[in-house]
Amino acid sequence: MAMAKAILSSEHLGTLFHQARTHNAWHPQPVSDDLLRQIYDLMKWGPTSANSLPARFVFLRTKEAKERLRPALSPLNVDKTMQAPVTVILAYDLKFYEHLPRLFPMKPDMKNMFSSSAQLAEITAFRNGSLQGGYFILAARALGLDCGPMSGFDNAKVDAEFFPSTSVKSNFLCNLGFGDHSKLFPRSPRLEFEEVCELL
Amino acid sequence: MAMAKAILSSEHLGTLFHQARTHNAWHPQPVSDDLLRQIYDLMKWGPTSANSLPARFVFLRTKEAKERLRPALSPLNVDKTMQAPVTVILAYDLKFYEHLPRLFPMKPDMKNMFSSSAQLAEITAFRNGSLQGGYFILAARALGLDCGPMSGFDNAKVDAEFFPSTSVKSNFLCNLGFGDHSKLFPRSPRLEFEEVCELL
Repeated sequence: MAMAKAILSSEHLGTLFHQARTHNAWHPQPVSDDLLRQIYDLMKWGPTSANSLPARFVFLRTKEAKERLRPALSPLNVDKTMQAPVTVILAYDLKFYEHLPRLFPMKPDMKNMFSSSAQLAEITAFRNGSLQGGYFILAARALGLDCGPMSGFDNAKVDAEFFPSTSVKSNFLCNLGFGDHSKLFPRSPRLEFEEVCELL
Repeated sequence: MAMAKAILSSEHLGTLFHQARTHNAWHPQPVSDDLLRQIYDLMKWGPTSANSLPARFVFLRTKEAKERLRPALSPLNVDKTMQAPVTVILAYDLKFYEHLPRLFPMKPDMKNMFSSSAQLAEITAFRNGSLQGGYFILAARALGLDCGPMSGFDNAKVDAEFFPSTSVKSNFLCNLGFGDHSKLFPRSPRLEFEEVCELL
């Protein structure tokens, strides 16, 4: 009855989950702009509440762009970020709702629900912008890239430098490139199903 | 130089992104507990800040469990949720840091950073719990399931019913099953790369 779908093989699940690791050292192999566009053109299809699509992305590819980020980084995140071929600032737009009449034509009045409540707009932007961060990481991995996501930075400094006088707020950073597997730390354990899941 | 990885074919990228849709009507085909465990055992490998793993999951599979959720649902979400084989409450634990000495053994003092700031703990739990929500949706799709994520419900009512006297807070809901493609709405548009991405 259900529509036939190409279910992923264990090899492909490994690319997304089992074998994929957070990288801290990078091969010099560059990441093309075309590949960055491919990531976006995949992850944009992931679902968001009322098709709100609040995530915004700044791709830092040049030495000059990386230097603008440097003062905001936690000390332990500086070297690996400077070395990575690309560092992405994943952000979200608190005024995402301005686009809703176009993005969610079924209910043109959805915009008012968010424009009338800054709190609801912020929760929606942060939740769905982070969901889109998850789609972004897995889309990058699906295309063969390695990721190094980071929260260790000063969000206010990044916002002042990259998003002044806008409604855009930084969420987290993610280094992109081809990781050096010989420099990986041992993998940290995960919580067991029984510890975090309930079947009712 | 980079380690060989199995890059996903366009068919598999379709399963995750291009062909995947948010479903509102479900075939009666059930979802086994084993499949729910497989989703968790995939998505648990997705990266979180300091391996914090704040996401928590309640799988509602029975009529009795669904009825406990019903009073919290927005009217438009009732029928499809009652019809879905499984509805998951995706939540996050504000006290995720209690597990950090085991989950992040490299830095046993990380726990104190979060236990001393309720604000940092809440932002970290919400950001990373939502990221894990993105991993969850794509892991379910990778295994052949369809998803119907929803924010249209009363979080306070869900927390009072399912997480009383705990540090766990509901994030969003997700119906799981095999979707009826004949009942899909037309697909909503997405924002273009140039509208939301900057190359620096």
